[in-house]
Order: sequence, then structure tokens, then C-alpha cells
Amino acid sequence: MPADIAGAKAALSHLDIEEKEVAIKAASRDFFWYSPVLKDRLDHVVADFVVRPRNEAEVIEILKVCYAHDVPVTTRGAGTGNYGQAMPLEGGCVMHLRHMDKVKEIHPGRVICEPGVLLKDLDAATKEHSGQELRMFSSTWATATIGGFIAGGSGGVGSCTWGSLRDLGNIIRLRVVTMEEEPRIVEFTGEELARVSHAYGTNGIITEVEMPLAPAYDWVEMFVATDDFMDAARFAEALANQDGILIKLATVFEAPIAKDYFQRVAPYVEADTNLIGLMVAPQSMDGFLTFLGRRPEARLIYRNDDFDWARTPGPVFEYGWNHTTLRALKVDPSITYLQVRYGYPNHLDLIEKMRNELSPEVLQHLEVLREGGKVIFAGLSLVKFTTEERLDEIIRLHEEAGAMIFNPHRYTLEEGGRQTVDDRQLRFKKEADPKGLLNPGKMIAWDDPDWDYSRMYAYPKLQAAE
Amino acid sequence: MPADIAGAKAALSHLDIEEKEVAIKAASRDFFWYSPVLKDRLDHVVADFVVRPRNEAEVIEILKVCYAHDVPVTTRGAGTGNYGQAMPLEGGCVMHLRHMDKVKEIHPGRVICEPGVLLKDLDAATKEHSGQELRMFSSTWATATIGGFIAGGSGGVGSCTWGSLRDLGNIIRLRVVTMEEEPRIVEFTGEELARVSHAYGTNGIITEVEMPLAPAYDWVEMFVATDDFMDAARFAEALANQDGILIKLATVFEAPIAKDYFQRVAPYVEADTNLIGLMVAPQSMDGFLTFLGRRPEARLIYRNDDFDWARTPGPVFEYGWNHTTLRALKVDPSITYLQVRYGYPNHLDLIEKMRNELSPEVLQHLEVLREGGKVIFAGLSLVKFTTEERLDEIIRLHEEAGAMIFNPHRYTLEEGGRQTVDDRQLRFKKEADPKGLLNPGKMIAWDDPDWDYSRMYAYPKLQAAE
Repeated sequence: MPADIAGAKAALSHLDIEEKEVAIKAASRDFFWYSPVLKDRLDHVVADFVVRPRNEAEVIEILKVCYAHDVPVTTRGAGTGNYGQAMPLEGGCVMHLRHMDKVKEIHPGRVICEPGVLLKDLDAATKEHSGQELRMFSSTWATATIGGFIAGGSGGVGSCTWGSLRDLGNIIRLRVVTMEEEPRIVEFTGEELARVSHAYGTNGIITEVEMPLAPAYDWVEMFVATDDFMDAARFAEALANQDGILIKLATVFEAPIAKDYFQRVAPYVEADTNLIGLMVAPQSMDGFLTFLGRRPEARLIYRNDDFDWARTPGPVFEYGWNHTTLRALKVDPSITYLQVRYGYPNHLDLIEKMRNELSPEVLQHLEVLREGGKVIFAGLSLVKFTTEERLDEIIRLHEEAGAMIFNPHRYTLEEGGRQTVDDRQLRFKKEADPKGLLNPGKMIAWDDPDWDYSRMYAYPKLQAAE
Repeated sequence: MPADIAGAKAALSHLDIEEKEVAIKAASRDFFWYSPVLKDRLDHVVADFVVRPRNEAEVIEILKVCYAHDVPVTTRGAGTGNYGQAMPLEGGCVMHLRHMDKVKEIHPGRVICEPGVLLKDLDAATKEHSGQELRMFSSTWATATIGGFIAGGSGGVGSCTWGSLRDLGNIIRLRVVTMEEEPRIVEFTGEELARVSHAYGTNGIITEVEMPLAPAYDWVEMFVATDDFMDAARFAEALANQDGILIKLATVFEAPIAKDYFQRVAPYVEADTNLIGLMVAPQSMDGFLTFLGRRPEARLIYRNDDFDWARTPGPVFEYGWNHTTLRALKVDPSITYLQVRYGYPNHLDLIEKMRNELSPEVLQHLEVLREGGKVIFAGLSLVKFTTEERLDEIIRLHEEAGAMIFNPHRYTLEEGGRQTVDDRQLRFKKEADPKGLLNPGKMIAWDDPDWDYSRMYAYPKLQAAE
């Protein structure tokens, strides 16, 4: 059935509906444009209308009305994702959860809140309440929502200690509304969490989350410099392997990233300076400085609690994760990036190999990550983009060498993930979204179960560019 | 010079001096008797007098007076060590720090206190103040002191997450008094901490400690049972490798330890039941139960927040670390133990090999430990003692197989450690204890630099048995 946009809008007119074209356009975009490939495909995509529910009852009403009118619903938080997670490929309704920002309960080690609360505001509330904070957050902490992080993210600042969002224990409970004739409310814990976490809102809408908390410390943020790149990588790995030193971030930037792209750091580094960005708990600083003292190859050039730089560089985590790419893009619009996983135990060799083969076309930006109890690296490598063919070749070179790529130049769950169908997500979509109206075009397994991944998937119902 | 005991006692008579023979005898003993070897050598050892300083000034006075009178000083907390750490081999003065139990300052992530405070009382104070607790503690938490733990211990409950006391960051600062004509006060941080931590009070007396804290949770304590021993070991390792599940203890007991030695657990297990003791943070219980659900070979038989056992078994950590040996000893006085380190990555193979060769003469008791960022196992194996020769042979079999032994049947730092001289400790002893009066007989490097470790060291000035 064709979508009855006008009918749905009319039925929802008593809610907070956005009608202004420019605002609809803004709410129809995320940070997909980090990828020239996605920019080429998705730049024109726009919703028909935007609605901002104030509570779960309104979410249910929106889903019910849109179901009745066959209107696709793409749900978003702040839209800070880079995989086009929140792009409404078919148009229809964008459901923006910004009003659902209540922090409901805070307990030792956990918090219950609505999905639309900003990570920053959630941390402020839990810190104020009892000196706690989220275990991990994206570098878009200041603007992103917890619901968006869970539905569209994988980990971030804190993952060097706690692993990824998908690891057992890093999400406690999700409350979800289905898109059926009569939407249901379901509560997911344990094995069920994988149905809807990192599912881009394709099979249910999260209306409440329960997340574990860690103690909030006044993290000491630092930059450490080395002349040799592998020294920097080894430094970050060895620090993360210090069981008694509590860290929240260890990021490695190959030269000349710091000099070329980090405007406020640039005066204090040379073009050949490799940089390490760190967050260390204050009670671990004595241990950290001892660790540092054993490594004459590493120089502490900045700490946020004691520095003489002319201007503060701002939070060090806003240099890491995908803020690195953002900073590079602002200076050189031809830069894009890859998401790489260098697995244990060959991670350092693999990093060195890829660098030897591809630098400076591909510059190494590494994030320390825990996976299966081991310290490894995620790469958010900066890529000097030339053509899609060359980008695909660079990806192929990584995969052939044994590095896993989570391709950020694709908008489907499968292509941006492990290139396999997630049966748990697919089965739940069949149950919870029988008409396939939730964030359409993002789950290949739903659209085209026989897809062979030999080329980039193109959603047949993607809006045509004008 | 011979010790002038009477002169020292007279000079210290205004302090809290213990004169009663039975009390002096009690204060001259630690838990060395877990070892039949040490029991044979040290059972008769007794101090000439015991003094209990109330503050640092009195510590200084005692050390100064004993220095002037050439009286050896062996310092103790609760005397819960098992290596004879607190045994006054030459007699002389035992300095008991029980009065020095003030908690001075509590901050986010750290605490400053005197050495004589009980671990239990320290945790109570930091929990009450701000929901914090020590990162790790010995299973003698209820009776042991923080100073004794630092001077004589290596790790314990919490080391599965935070590593060992010697790891950078697990001790922040130690304030130490030397034993010279004019005792000095020195403050140690960083690299200097290794001079006096785990030095048995042989080269300085700790008068103040600064330790890192972790959040205090209402840990869920559990017993999980398996039929197969290696299943239990793999379960504990895999759980500790779950980055998102916060644990404080993972202990593995080979059958029939639980049935034979754990009186309150025995009714709920069979002779062939292998047991896992766990402490899991409450916010991690959903993740834990999911982990458990994936392992049909493991059965949850007890959790302290929901159980139908006739009697509570008490704290689960009081079954682990060296409480396991204590419980076994109470049932079977012929039991003793070994301290083993099964290093990464061959730890599981090594454990299986030693068990195949030696069970049931040696029963596996494993503690999950983090070392260098990896999950490994410490073994506190239960040994059915026959002869010293056989015990030495069992040790040799472990060492030949590649397992490191920290021999708890020796009273010197070197033999109970890595069988090498710790230059940092020795150098500081030369500076801080020129007469060699602090806990004499415990540092071979001081007594006999050319000792070749071919046999058990026997301190020449050890008190003769009557």
C-alpha cells in the first residue's frame, strides 16, 4: 500500500509535528556525509514530516497511526551517527526522541532513563546524584543521546576498560515498542538485548533504557608525544594492560594528524610527532607517571590539570573516536575514514603492516579497546579519498591482511557490520514490524534474503534525487 | 653487640608494653603453621616483649630506643600471614600496630589511613563515607590490617580485576620510618614503593598508607557447580574475560574440596562436584545470568541474595584465597598448600597437566588473577603432606612443568618470592636499617649475599628451640 502521508499527519496533528521544510531537512540528516560514498547516495534524502513524541504513549500512538497509514518511520536521537543510521531512505516520518529525556532512577551501578536524554546530561545527573557516570560514551557526548548510542553505536570512550556495548553487562534492560496494528511494549534483558541494540530502530523503538554506571572521576586528560609511531601504539597498549591503572581513553594518532588537523595542539608538536590522547583516573596518576618514567621515548606534552598552553585544547576525548575524522575533514574535505578491528594477538603487527603499505594515503588513528578480556585496537583510519574503487581496494587490502572492516561507506546493518545476517534482529523484525515500516532499507536480510554482498547494496525504494 | 632487652624495655616503659608471657607468645605468632615445614622450624619462636605504639612519634621512639639497645624489631599487624612474615626469629621486640588504626582522609578513588586499621573497618569507613571500598583485600579481611596486607601480602579478592598489589597504581603512597640512630620519615611513591611493599618490615616501618579505592557494591556472592573440573576452570576464566561483567572474585575448587572441607556447602554438593565461588556486581547480574545460561554444564547452587539453604555459608570470599587451606586444615590436619602461578597463555594446559599428574595428592584450588592485562590463575593448591622431601618434589614437578612457585614453606623474602634478590629492597635496607635489626632473618641478601638457594635457608641466629 502507498503511504498515506497526509492521513498520518492529520491523525497526529495534536502532537509536536514539525512542518517547516528547512527543519524537516535538518532532522532528516545525520553525519553520513563523513563518507563520500554515502554523501553521493543519500544527500537528497528527506522525510515528509517530523514528529517529536513527549512520552511512550505518544510513541505508541505515532507507530499505530503510521502503521495504519503505511508510513515508514525512521527514529532518531541527535543524528550523530556516521553510517546513515537515521536517514529516512524512503521519506515518511522521522520520529525525533529529543523530548523523551527524563532520568527516572539512579542506583548504585545503574541508571534508568528515557532514550532522548543527552549523554552529557545523563552523566551530569548521575554524577550529581552519586558520583557516577556511564561506562562508555561516544565522542559526540555533548550532543548525542543515550538511545541513539545504543541503537546506532558500538562503543567509545570507556571501551578500553569495559569493552563494547554488545558485550554482556554493558546494557541491562531495554524497553521497546513494536510497530503493529496494536503496538506492544516488551522488556528485553540478557540474550534478548541483541534483538534491538545496534539495530538502527529497524525492529522496535526503545522507550526506556537501563544502563550500568561506573564511578565518575575527574579524569586527567593528557597528550603524550613520541617520534616513532609504533612506540605510540605500544605505549597505549602497555598502559591499557596495566591492571592497576584506571583509564578511560587511550587513542593513538599517526603523524602528521596532530600537526595538520588538531589546530590547538599544532603549535606544540612537529609534523613528525605521533600523539597519544589519554584519560587517566586521578588516583592512578602516580602509577601513570611511574609508567611514563620508564619510557623515555614518550613525552607528556599536555595535561588538563596543569598546562601552560595559550588555549585549552578542550576535552581530549573530542580528539578521539570519530571526532578525529571530523577535525581532519574540517581542514581537508577529501578526508574520509575506515572502521577497522585489529584482533588479538596480531594487532600490532597488522597495524604496522597496514601502515607500511598505505601511509600516508591512510593515516593510522587507533583506539584501545577491550575485547574478550584482551587489549586490542580499533582503527578509525583517516583515508585520503580519491575514488570509490580505490576506497574499496583499500578495504580489500585490510581484509586480505586479516583486519576486519566495519564499512562506514554503507547504510545497511549488514554491510556496516560483520556482513552477515543477524538472525535475532531479523526474527524480531518479522514479529515487531510486519509491514517493514521501521527505518526501511537498512536491513538487507529483510529486503533481499538472497543478497550476496558482491557489491554495495542499493535500496530499491530509496528516494530518487531531484 | 648483644641486645640489651632490659634496657630497651625500661626506656619504653611509659608506652603500651605487653609483659604477660601468654600474650607475648600470642603476639609472636602468625599463621606460619599452615606449613608443616615452618611449624617444625618456628613453633618455639617468641619475642622478649611486645610494644604497641599509638602513633608515629611512638614508632620513632621505639625504633630509636631499640636501635640504641641493639634490639631486633619485628613489626606486625594482625599476624595473619602464612610465610612467617611476623615471626620474631631472633626474639627481641615485636611492635604491634593495632592502635594505629585511624582513617585520616577519604577522597574520590583514594583513602589515607594508618597501617593498623583492619581491612574490614577501612572498608566500612570508606563505604559509609562515599560508597567506596578497597580494590582488593585478603580473605582475612575481617581480622587483617591494611599495613600487614601491604607489607606481607601480594593480592587477593579483587585481584581478578585489579591485578596484584605490586602492580603500578595499586598502592599510591607509603610513609615509612627508618631504624637509625635518628630515625627518618620518608614518603614513597612511584618506583620507590617497591622498596618497602612486600618487604615484611625488614627495611622500614609503614606509618601511613594511601590506597586507591573502587566503588563498593552489594556484591552478589554465589556458588556455581560443575561435574568436570576443567569446565569449572574454563567457566571462571571466561567470566573474567567478559569485559562488561564486573566481578570481585572467581575461585575454582576441585572436587572433593567442597564436599570434604566446606561444612555448610557439603549438604548441597556431591563428592565429585567441582565448585566455583563468585562475587559479581549487582548491576552485572543480568549479564552474568546470561553468561551462565549459555553454559549448561554449570549450575548455580547458591546466591547470597536468594537461597533456601538451611544456614548461610557466610561470605563466599572466606572460602577462597588462603581460607580454603584453613578450612581444609580444620578437617584434615595433614593438609598444607602451595602458591602457584599459572602464566598466560598456557595456564589452562598447565593446570590440567599438574592435576593429571598429582590429583588427589594435590587438589587444585585456583584464583582468577589479572597479570599484565591478561586473565591467568594463581593456584593455592591443597597438598596432602607426607614428607618434606615429597613436598619439595611436588614443587620441583611444578617448576619443571613451567609453573612458578612462591614457596610458602620458607620464611625468607627471596624463597617465598621469585628466588632472586630484590636490589631495591636490599639497597634501602642498607640505608634505613644499618644495624640489620628490622625483622632479622627474613632477607637472605642481607645475611648471606652468596647464598645459592640449593637448599632451605636457615637463619643462623634463629632462636634455639628449648
